[in-house]
Amino acid sequence: MTSSKIITAGVLVIGNEILSGRTQDTNSNAIASALSAHGVRLMEIRVVPDIQGRIVEGVNALRSAYDYVFTTGGIGPTHDDITADSIAAAFGVSIGVRQDAYDILLAHYGKEDLTDARLRMARIPDGAKLIYNPVSAAPGIIMENVYVMAGVPQIMRAMLDIVIGGIQGGDPILSGSVACNLPESALASDMEALQNAYPDLEVGSYPYFRNGVQGLSIAIRGIDRGMLESAIDKMANILRERGEEPLVNLPQ
Amino acid sequence: MTSSKIITAGVLVIGNEILSGRTQDTNSNAIASALSAHGVRLMEIRVVPDIQGRIVEGVNALRSAYDYVFTTGGIGPTHDDITADSIAAAFGVSIGVRQDAYDILLAHYGKEDLTDARLRMARIPDGAKLIYNPVSAAPGIIMENVYVMAGVPQIMRAMLDIVIGGIQGGDPILSGSVACNLPESALASDMEALQNAYPDLEVGSYPYFRNGVQGLSIAIRGIDRGMLESAIDKMANILRERGEEPLVNLPQ
Repeated sequence: MTSSKIITAGVLVIGNEILSGRTQDTNSNAIASALSAHGVRLMEIRVVPDIQGRIVEGVNALRSAYDYVFTTGGIGPTHDDITADSIAAAFGVSIGVRQDAYDILLAHYGKEDLTDARLRMARIPDGAKLIYNPVSAAPGIIMENVYVMAGVPQIMRAMLDIVIGGIQGGDPILSGSVACNLPESALASDMEALQNAYPDLEVGSYPYFRNGVQGLSIAIRGIDRGMLESAIDKMANILRERGEEPLVNLPQ
Repeated sequence: MTSSKIITAGVLVIGNEILSGRTQDTNSNAIASALSAHGVRLMEIRVVPDIQGRIVEGVNALRSAYDYVFTTGGIGPTHDDITADSIAAAFGVSIGVRQDAYDILLAHYGKEDLTDARLRMARIPDGAKLIYNPVSAAPGIIMENVYVMAGVPQIMRAMLDIVIGGIQGGDPILSGSVACNLPESALASDMEALQNAYPDLEVGSYPYFRNGVQGLSIAIRGIDRGMLESAIDKMANILRERGEEPLVNLPQ
């Protein structure tokens, strides 16, 4: 057991394409998984449109509530890429083309092809650090506790891999599960008793349908491996007593 | 062109499993698509954990900001299913087992199997209407402008199909796209000019990588079909002038 402070995070997904249904957001799931493995608790995700006031509001709400904020989207070269300007507005700092970001784009595009549109991607809020972009050069931004990343999943993941090691984490949050074919409601009191017996763990149940058969995954999460395995074992035994053959997944 | 009021909505996804990365949320994308087709603009998505205070805060923020709110998750029979109680708290009304919901569950489970856990699903906030659940009986809830639906995608979609026809919509928001292999930055000024020429449309560009080749989808959205087709045509011609063979998707 650790009694260290719990590190928290929020995610702000920026983009009309998510809200219109055009694009299925997968970035926040990738960030959520990476944070869990790094021992950081993701407490909230917000998706907002490409409107500066809404981005500013979202950034300010999340950065004051959580230790870290990760944003995705809106850092490209087009008219609807307004995240860098919105970050500057949220922090009340100025923004302009910065030499180090300019140099990165110059090296990538060459002088002839470094158009005005591309120069937008060298606009960095005062006081920010850059996040290296191994895919398409245009950098991300770190502004205090806010990590501003690309929206294109391949680029976002490359940036996330780079920054995740640099943030303060905690003990990894481990998870295991027990699956069976009983309905959720048949196990509700057992799961509640298990939750009460292990207040430091998180017991959740997730019904699913597969090939017309209803199944139930009971997921248990926490940082103490021994405690987690004991709770999983207890749940598996409860299921065996009911004649089920539970599918047990221990934490990795 | 219509000058009717724009109808707006927010989505509140309730569930630790989304924030831990265990589960990829697909419900908000399904709701987003259904709302677009119904002429409702989804303005915000929030994901919050299974904590009553956070659910209440999310419901109240969204229901005062938008015409409609859709929540998913937390209406099952287990200890972490606290959405109905949170809705009652958000509206400041009482909650208890209600006869019509009880009857639905009784018909589904029979008297012997209508356990205390299952009875949780008959707890309805005062003044709410029920949403029929054709999959697993336990009803959803409509409380004023808040639509409370299940988290299991199959059940959520069934409920969504049922309620969507009953909400005030607008002209469907149509979308089309033009795809090419130019980088986004090469077309930034053309897209900005197009956006300025068609202020009632929404022009967005989405780079993608497929088999190592970078592509760009230019998506255009709006309610006026003629205007939309004209803008798509214009963009396609710009691309042809640059030697591209654009892939054109007209609005359906």
